[in-house]
Amino acid sequence: MTDPPKKRRRAGGRAAHMRRAGGQAVAQMPWRLPVNADRPTEPLDEAGIAAIHDGAMRILEEIGIEFLNEEALALFRQAGCIVEGTNVRMGREFVMEMLGHAPRRFTITPRNPARRISLGGGHILFGNVSSPPNYWDMETGKRPGTRAHCADLLKLTQYFNCIHFSGGYPVEPVDLHPSTRHLDVVFDKLTLTDKVTHAYSLGPERVEDVIEMVRIAGALSHEEFEAAPRMYTNINSTSPLKHDKPMIDGCLRLVRRGQAVVVSPFTLAGAMAPVTLAGAVAQSIAEGLSAIALFQYLRPGAPCVLGTFTSNVDMKSGAPAFGTPEYMRATQMTGQMARFYGLPLRASGVCAANVPDAQAMWETCNSLWSAVQAGAHMLYHAAGWLEGGLIASPEKFIMDCEVLQMIQRYFEPALWATGPEEIALDAIREVGSTGHFFGVAHTQERFESAFYQPFLADWRNFEAWEQAGALWTAERAHRLFKAIVADFEPPPMDEAIREELQAFVDRRKSEGGAPTDF
Amino acid sequence: MTDPPKKRRRAGGRAAHMRRAGGQAVAQMPWRLPVNADRPTEPLDEAGIAAIHDGAMRILEEIGIEFLNEEALALFRQAGCIVEGTNVRMGREFVMEMLGHAPRRFTITPRNPARRISLGGGHILFGNVSSPPNYWDMETGKRPGTRAHCADLLKLTQYFNCIHFSGGYPVEPVDLHPSTRHLDVVFDKLTLTDKVTHAYSLGPERVEDVIEMVRIAGALSHEEFEAAPRMYTNINSTSPLKHDKPMIDGCLRLVRRGQAVVVSPFTLAGAMAPVTLAGAVAQSIAEGLSAIALFQYLRPGAPCVLGTFTSNVDMKSGAPAFGTPEYMRATQMTGQMARFYGLPLRASGVCAANVPDAQAMWETCNSLWSAVQAGAHMLYHAAGWLEGGLIASPEKFIMDCEVLQMIQRYFEPALWATGPEEIALDAIREVGSTGHFFGVAHTQERFESAFYQPFLADWRNFEAWEQAGALWTAERAHRLFKAIVADFEPPPMDEAIREELQAFVDRRKSEGGAPTDF
Repeated sequence: MTDPPKKRRRAGGRAAHMRRAGGQAVAQMPWRLPVNADRPTEPLDEAGIAAIHDGAMRILEEIGIEFLNEEALALFRQAGCIVEGTNVRMGREFVMEMLGHAPRRFTITPRNPARRISLGGGHILFGNVSSPPNYWDMETGKRPGTRAHCADLLKLTQYFNCIHFSGGYPVEPVDLHPSTRHLDVVFDKLTLTDKVTHAYSLGPERVEDVIEMVRIAGALSHEEFEAAPRMYTNINSTSPLKHDKPMIDGCLRLVRRGQAVVVSPFTLAGAMAPVTLAGAVAQSIAEGLSAIALFQYLRPGAPCVLGTFTSNVDMKSGAPAFGTPEYMRATQMTGQMARFYGLPLRASGVCAANVPDAQAMWETCNSLWSAVQAGAHMLYHAAGWLEGGLIASPEKFIMDCEVLQMIQRYFEPALWATGPEEIALDAIREVGSTGHFFGVAHTQERFESAFYQPFLADWRNFEAWEQAGALWTAERAHRLFKAIVADFEPPPMDEAIREELQAFVDRRKSEGGAPTDF
Repeated sequence: MTDPPKKRRRAGGRAAHMRRAGGQAVAQMPWRLPVNADRPTEPLDEAGIAAIHDGAMRILEEIGIEFLNEEALALFRQAGCIVEGTNVRMGREFVMEMLGHAPRRFTITPRNPARRISLGGGHILFGNVSSPPNYWDMETGKRPGTRAHCADLLKLTQYFNCIHFSGGYPVEPVDLHPSTRHLDVVFDKLTLTDKVTHAYSLGPERVEDVIEMVRIAGALSHEEFEAAPRMYTNINSTSPLKHDKPMIDGCLRLVRRGQAVVVSPFTLAGAMAPVTLAGAVAQSIAEGLSAIALFQYLRPGAPCVLGTFTSNVDMKSGAPAFGTPEYMRATQMTGQMARFYGLPLRASGVCAANVPDAQAMWETCNSLWSAVQAGAHMLYHAAGWLEGGLIASPEKFIMDCEVLQMIQRYFEPALWATGPEEIALDAIREVGSTGHFFGVAHTQERFESAFYQPFLADWRNFEAWEQAGALWTAERAHRLFKAIVADFEPPPMDEAIREELQAFVDRRKSEGGAPTDF
């Protein structure tokens, strides 16, 4: 059989060739917050929206959600909800009143204000893969994540302008002790990137440490930090129908400081949620809204995002599937519900594939386009995700960034402009039936910016592609990865701030970090 | 570096393992005509539609289209259009009056009436790759197409229920002499498949031969054949602004016999059309409508489809690009125009990639989803296309069929049903916050049909996938291809009909076939 990867290995050392002028490995689009102006795809009619809403409200009213967090239970009691043990039932009037406080849009400002993001206002924004325990690349194969892997993926997160915010750890660095891991990784995140960052809600010490580090990195007083969102956390419910202690604790801490929270139930239809998609979505909505209602009660106007992570399992093996038709429709349906409740929406770019091959990209494209169709505002895992979230891969990261750039380009209104210059009757007349458009002024004036320019896709014909080494896409992505990391320059940071961050990390390490019995 | 393809080659012989009960290599979805109920994505507002319409009409009125076909010129003269040499100018009133005769929907019935397709009535239908000169598979690499390659791809065309019609030759069999090639390949098409088939408009003898063979295969009298569409042709204009002689000749012959025609200008922005998309679309519309107006004048009510094949070139190399953001928007915009004119729309599933890898699938998914978003009724090249149409690949064919099946599943209304059984409040109550949904009756009653079941995607975890040979998707597709072809059984055909077809082929060969100086 033909074996392009073999040729690729032999060819070697082409990375330098790919670098562009100015030491840039990739000629990429500039930073921007793309606007999704497409009308969403809406499978549900009004009765369908009402049915899912009623289902979610009846779950909250009749079945209730478990909150394994004393503080939350006390707040719900104070709000007049029915609290029995850890079970909380709340009326739809209360929920809808609380949701009425939630902002439809808000901003988060990282240490570099030029990287401010706006959530809920028509933008569609992308973040890196978060939390896989394993790393895979073409060279190493699959192995447990390390701090070095994590740093490389953070460099990609910073490098690509189409990545608007940083998620959780792009890979879990299991070579770092859990008690101090967050200190090292957040130090790396804050020094290697200047984009909006995230705190895991994994115990009060960790959350407080990250808050403090984000404050230091931004050179902010406590008052300045709390005056506007500077960071966020993302939590999952423990489906079905449960919120655990540290997740809610982290959210409450951030909400009290005016920071943003994203609540993303992980409702796999057929496993942690009903096998029917409307049921899985209704349950996801109930789980998400119960937490957001709590946060609005605590602090009316708290910036909250409703997340969707409803997919289905493979009914033969129980393995989660992603980018399926069911995933796409669940995402679109949740988009309709988020608009109904007036909340910004988070979705994802995900796949079940184990390697960055054809399957990986059809599953990922399905999930990304469904997020576009759903009107999602914030896409987690938009670059680098493999094996249902168990693997982070730099090759996949780079492939995904090509697709994300194309989505950004897809949203440029120039593409559907219909002024006289775009209808171009004069150019059509000039070329007539025998000429070619390349030579005419109308083309020459526009050709440099007329079309999307890929950095990874190879548009040459087969023979030219073969001559250049017959590199399959994963291999080309691997070489770009090496070139980007080799060229990487961290964003500027004031030396005094870096020292303050380092001192904080040192002090907290000397204190033992955070407990690991959460 | 890791080298999964190497492992794959060593593993060998897993095809048998993949076969399902009943000797079927693939457990696939049944034949159906999927209904696209999504609201189309519409970048153009009313003014935008009016601007493109006006641009197209001014091209037809002021610049004109070249028709290198005497019969067409005579018809246009007779219709009162301005004919100067081969240039034809026509007023918008004439065009719109002619378009008013075109049916919004119609059927085509092949030799097996159970494979009847309906075009323009909300269905989205898929056809195989057509006309690449080259074949590529994992075993052979790239080589000129042969009759054997072509037959294998016809077997895939017949085998997959998600392929609704047969396009042109799935690969050009260059081992057959051009004078009789059509006789052999159409014999293969009509015996290996029972789906709607196509005739190339490459000279009167070829078209007449194919018409006769389709008539014989359907056991139809000449009268029965002409009573309803039984086949179709697809033509491209010779952009810019030109229709060549054999293409129009073939259409006129089919239209006279009540058969269907698809007119698909190939307007690459920046090459054969303006660099601005609105201009490229306006030109494409003008080229398409000029021919469809002619056919409606010849036979009011003739079944016609407007095709779109507007993409852009790589402005660095001039190579055509596919599945780009520009391609997607052009397809959506043409969808709006097709609805404005009341014509069924043809689009495509295409890519620029040279091998069936990650790039191939993100480009193909982009093109397929834009066809869905455009409300296209008929997708050419929906399975098997590589290298901008220069390569047909069985692995890519099989990958594409997985995506096409997912699109079919995506359109099943069960996915967004919101009745009490789907909201599943009782199941949610039963499982509560500690259980699992797999065991409950609500799940068990539905689990066999609840979710899309892939035949190519591997949803196992990394370790199980590795243990099974660590096959990347292209390699898995190659094995399925071998298994499908090994198992293939042609659809039934009456022996007398087969003999009549064979006798026709023999006679026409003895007469020398068709001239090759077209």
